[in-house]
Amino acid sequence: MTLAGRPPAAALVFRTLLVQGPLTRAELGRRTGLSPGAVTKVAAPLLADGWITELGRPAGERASGRPATPMAVRAERARFIGVKVTADELIGVLTDLTATPLATRRAPLASRDVDSVVRAIARLVTRLRTAGGAAKDGAAKGSTAEHGAESPGGVHGIGVTLAGDIDARAGTVQYSPFLDWRQVPLARLAGAATGTPTVVDNDVRALTVAEQWFGAGAGLSSFALVTVGAGIGCGIAVDGRVVSGAYGVAGEAGHLPVGGDRVCTCGNTGCVEAVAATHAITEQARQATGDPGMTMAAAVRRAHAGDPAVREVFARAGRALGLAMASIANLVGPQRIVISGEGVASYDLFADAVRAAFRAQAFGAAAECDLVVRPLPFEAWARGGAAVAAQQVFAP
Amino acid sequence: MTLAGRPPAAALVFRTLLVQGPLTRAELGRRTGLSPGAVTKVAAPLLADGWITELGRPAGERASGRPATPMAVRAERARFIGVKVTADELIGVLTDLTATPLATRRAPLASRDVDSVVRAIARLVTRLRTAGGAAKDGAAKGSTAEHGAESPGGVHGIGVTLAGDIDARAGTVQYSPFLDWRQVPLARLAGAATGTPTVVDNDVRALTVAEQWFGAGAGLSSFALVTVGAGIGCGIAVDGRVVSGAYGVAGEAGHLPVGGDRVCTCGNTGCVEAVAATHAITEQARQATGDPGMTMAAAVRRAHAGDPAVREVFARAGRALGLAMASIANLVGPQRIVISGEGVASYDLFADAVRAAFRAQAFGAAAECDLVVRPLPFEAWARGGAAVAAQQVFAP
Repeated sequence: MTLAGRPPAAALVFRTLLVQGPLTRAELGRRTGLSPGAVTKVAAPLLADGWITELGRPAGERASGRPATPMAVRAERARFIGVKVTADELIGVLTDLTATPLATRRAPLASRDVDSVVRAIARLVTRLRTAGGAAKDGAAKGSTAEHGAESPGGVHGIGVTLAGDIDARAGTVQYSPFLDWRQVPLARLAGAATGTPTVVDNDVRALTVAEQWFGAGAGLSSFALVTVGAGIGCGIAVDGRVVSGAYGVAGEAGHLPVGGDRVCTCGNTGCVEAVAATHAITEQARQATGDPGMTMAAAVRRAHAGDPAVREVFARAGRALGLAMASIANLVGPQRIVISGEGVASYDLFADAVRAAFRAQAFGAAAECDLVVRPLPFEAWARGGAAVAAQQVFAP
Repeated sequence: MTLAGRPPAAALVFRTLLVQGPLTRAELGRRTGLSPGAVTKVAAPLLADGWITELGRPAGERASGRPATPMAVRAERARFIGVKVTADELIGVLTDLTATPLATRRAPLASRDVDSVVRAIARLVTRLRTAGGAAKDGAAKGSTAEHGAESPGGVHGIGVTLAGDIDARAGTVQYSPFLDWRQVPLARLAGAATGTPTVVDNDVRALTVAEQWFGAGAGLSSFALVTVGAGIGCGIAVDGRVVSGAYGVAGEAGHLPVGGDRVCTCGNTGCVEAVAATHAITEQARQATGDPGMTMAAAVRRAHAGDPAVREVFARAGRALGLAMASIANLVGPQRIVISGEGVASYDLFADAVRAAFRAQAFGAAAECDLVVRPLPFEAWARGGAAVAAQQVFAP
């Protein structure tokens, strides 16, 4: 069961409560533009079905007529599973409706063969369902039992995410460089193997959806997410929707041309990724120090110890990232840009250069765009998949 | 009278006919997702009020029941005036509902004083209304007389556009560098002086709106317009809406950082505008030839005559433009990018470099984005204002 098939006003009320709630009926009317009567009419079946609740009133008890009672979304009403596929492991998370993790599990990948990965996804999903049974007795006690029997273990939907060119609408992995997959109908295969409706999406786009509804982008009409790590990823939300690109490509901030003579893995010169991705930083640190075996961790330590040549490598990466963010601000004008990814663990080494380059290059009022750093816990990528699956319920 | 206040389905039917018409009721139903009954119900008052017509049937005659008759928007149903304000003149155009010019007038500006410019706008509007009386007897014979008496001369609305930071919602010129205006409530002032509802907007954004509804962007969910001339302008439409930016800045493609050591008027190094705007090309051509008096026209002639140094100046500008377009494609993924502006008069000198740089830097499928060159007649900028005013009617 989803909100699809209900009147558009129902989804509007639900989404407003999701992002801005708890709210009284009167406040909900003001924010949605609906009349008090329309709010009450639309809210009644959502209350009856347990999607929303009146605070201070036990779930399930019928609403009677205290319009000043604030209403809120019942996060425990539905559960989702997100699975992020990497080159060598799966990261899975069981969440509630607001993509809040209830349990996390990881599983190494023995093979990159499609059937083998699909079977591994199904096994991980079973482990998360089992963990969910335990979680149900704890945090979400008694909550999904009443309404959540849509599929085994009360899981409404699954979202599988991975890097690469993903056709989310068709549910197909068009091309995954690290798995060497082409044209794999992963949503159908994983849905059949798990017995639960499954969607697939690009991992960065999914993370952007999670931030849009439940993170640093909630309530903003436009924002961008930039992830820094093995690659430079980016998702852009405009008018409350994550931009997909007419040809499936959007948010490729890693391949913005920002000058310099380093050659990128894409074959071009001057891409952000050629200066600021982990491999690029390691390579430059090796050149700067003459130590051909230097790792990223060692480069971070050297920079923290004050080595000026290695510090300059991070500053150069920061400048490239700042210029990329200024390009996003100048073209799209988001309210906020969120910086995340493994790279932000050592963000102190980039920060000054990012902000200086951004401020210098952002044009006029575009510089007012808020830059926010969000550390990314390891299950966050998987949480993106759960958010994409949850979005099917309230914004299909 | 506008379509505002009518059911949302009415505006949807009208916009679908505007962009994709003429269409039969059956086809209109397929494209809007409305049932045949709903299309007929929604179309009846639009037919009665003369906003749409059945082809082959005289306007005004009541529809009876020939559902296979294609319906179309009646372009002559409403008239608009667009006025573009430049540093030294006004360019005005009277158009029909589809922003098709019926008459064009220009007026020199004696002063940049606010009152003086507002009076000049009012005089130009009067001249266009008079011209409109003549046009009415010609091309749009007998058309506006029946329904179009909303304001003197049958003009529904006026759109005034100019370069700079414009708050379209508030109707205020926040900052116009070339007029040296700050916080001027131009919509209110021009509305009072002309007696007709007036909107104001940034000139490039307005031109993007004109292309979105009535030009190379019609029917596309996403596209971008890049104008090349005294400055480099850009408007971006996503999901059918022109992006405005949370802080009023968007589409500033001229200040994308694309490398190189030329200093921009904004104070930064490496902006597109520092290489590809008219003044930048002239300056580089002077340096390349050692002729300190060389004009843009002379540079174009020299390049056409084969001077390799001057040809390289245009190629460098073309590379910067191609990289800017690739940045737009990589971040937003538009279906098409339209290149326009005074600069396209000599586009043959840029073209190869634009396409080569775009193809090299556009990431993966983003390179499938269609590049289209559109020459810009001198009244086109004014037409943008008329399109913004017309948009108030069908997409307020």
